[in-house]
Amino acid sequence: MTNTPVCVLGLGLIGGSLMRAAAGAGREVFGYNRSLEAVQAARADGFDTTEDLDAVLRRAAEGNALIVLAVPVPALGRLLAHIRDVASGCPLTDVTSVKGAVLDEVRAVGLLDRFVGGHPMAGTAHSGWAAGTAELFVGAPWVVSVDDHVDPEVWALVMNLALDCGAVVVPARSEEHDAAAATISHLPHLLAEALAATAGEVPLAFALAAGSFRDGTRVAATAPDLVRAMCEANATHLLTALDRTLNLLNHARDALSQDKPLTDLVDLGHAARIRYDSFPRPEIVTTVIGEDRWREELAAAGRSGGVIRSALRVRGSRG
Amino acid sequence: MTNTPVCVLGLGLIGGSLMRAAAGAGREVFGYNRSLEAVQAARADGFDTTEDLDAVLRRAAEGNALIVLAVPVPALGRLLAHIRDVASGCPLTDVTSVKGAVLDEVRAVGLLDRFVGGHPMAGTAHSGWAAGTAELFVGAPWVVSVDDHVDPEVWALVMNLALDCGAVVVPARSEEHDAAAATISHLPHLLAEALAATAGEVPLAFALAAGSFRDGTRVAATAPDLVRAMCEANATHLLTALDRTLNLLNHARDALSQDKPLTDLVDLGHAARIRYDSFPRPEIVTTVIGEDRWREELAAAGRSGGVIRSALRVRGSRG
Repeated sequence: MTNTPVCVLGLGLIGGSLMRAAAGAGREVFGYNRSLEAVQAARADGFDTTEDLDAVLRRAAEGNALIVLAVPVPALGRLLAHIRDVASGCPLTDVTSVKGAVLDEVRAVGLLDRFVGGHPMAGTAHSGWAAGTAELFVGAPWVVSVDDHVDPEVWALVMNLALDCGAVVVPARSEEHDAAAATISHLPHLLAEALAATAGEVPLAFALAAGSFRDGTRVAATAPDLVRAMCEANATHLLTALDRTLNLLNHARDALSQDKPLTDLVDLGHAARIRYDSFPRPEIVTTVIGEDRWREELAAAGRSGGVIRSALRVRGSRG
Repeated sequence: MTNTPVCVLGLGLIGGSLMRAAAGAGREVFGYNRSLEAVQAARADGFDTTEDLDAVLRRAAEGNALIVLAVPVPALGRLLAHIRDVASGCPLTDVTSVKGAVLDEVRAVGLLDRFVGGHPMAGTAHSGWAAGTAELFVGAPWVVSVDDHVDPEVWALVMNLALDCGAVVVPARSEEHDAAAATISHLPHLLAEALAATAGEVPLAFALAAGSFRDGTRVAATAPDLVRAMCEANATHLLTALDRTLNLLNHARDALSQDKPLTDLVDLGHAARIRYDSFPRPEIVTTVIGEDRWREELAAAGRSGGVIRSALRVRGSRG
């Protein structure tokens, strides 16, 4: 099963890193990018890439490759229409950040039964083919969706790809993933932007800035288009998270303005961070993919910190 | 002048690191801590320390040592009263974060003419003697106050101590320092606490947390007492910074809820962070401490990024 070829659509930071990591694990991998520049850069690094979408999808269809959608959400529609026309039988996954938006697009073109969403929780402030590395996913959580519709065999293919890239697999329902991603990925971007913008208006602030500011604004260096795309695509969940944060900060504001202690916010935040530092990561080992209630079992395990570090068995397969 | 002994009051992370760094630079340094535990830990590491405040201050007075206040703001009053009684002639500085609050305390006991405020912009999430290192200040900005009252000779003593510790000196007026510190140090703490607290309430959030969350909440691991002390001591300036951030986030909230783009916040934040990455740090070399308008000259240079990397000349001294 791990000999299934991999077809990567989009050779930016994530797609490009995935291509390197999968090749490093001995997988057959080929890729496509819309702009010739990334295609040529990847080719110069020894990878099998093209800017011909029809050709790459015909090849995927012939080899029944696992197709990986590694483009920003706004570019998904065009790719999915082509996949439906040329390679509708191929197993399909994605590596974009917001799962609800991708599910909507995949459902709209009728490819839901071959689709299992994915999200490697790794990145840097840089983007593009040149920023990628084979090591980007090593030790990182890689969410693989266990929504009600997912097919056990496609699920196992995506799990194996993530493991081949060195990631640990976190099974999660798309809806829960998006609510969590809003708080631990999208909200931090908004706070970083606000912090950088606020400091940028104060004389002397940059002259004094040290660790707290650098860490707190690191992700504000991310390309604005990427930040907007992921935040706007998860607007509903992000609003919930942002409202909670605004509520906490408004209470702190009131306390400060009345010379009252900041106890509530500081104690809550400190306790949460300490809890995070010792959050357990038990390994999921007993679930058999495809058995009764396997999706519910994996979703519950992922929610309480469980991760998959080596391939789970699939019902009916050897091993 | 660099042979002036150094008397460190308070042997926590900052005071303890300062003691190590000054000793490493060949300075005579001795210290005091209220709790015997830190005194003994420092002594075991080979440092000259005591828990007898009267004795340490008599020794400072005899040697005309530079006294460094390295205790939290709430503990300043008690120390300053003792200093006034036993060692009122000694040059005096501090290494606490909020300069306005310290100025008020120093003024109240009548020691303003021997005082030059300081603030090394370095730290870790840990505290106490054991957390300190001689390298903590290497390359870090160390603010030395150029308020109207400051004495040129005391100013030079504090500058030399900071340089001996490996820091770069940023001259700044106390008021401007506090406004800047509110945005690049205290506000990041509040945002980190709010982010950690928000994520702590969402199932799956800790399971998925990666770089953005870790960086954005790093300082939430700081002891709550320290966070509250520095934020509450700078409440007025922090309110100004927090209100600006709340304003930016509320606009982002409105945009998200109306399906409008997050352009304003994201573009502002990104531009500020990029500007910070290339913020110039020209060296201040020509100012002579004690000459006409030297304070104004240094404050203006610090505001536009200027730093002191080697000791400036003092009017009337050799060199």
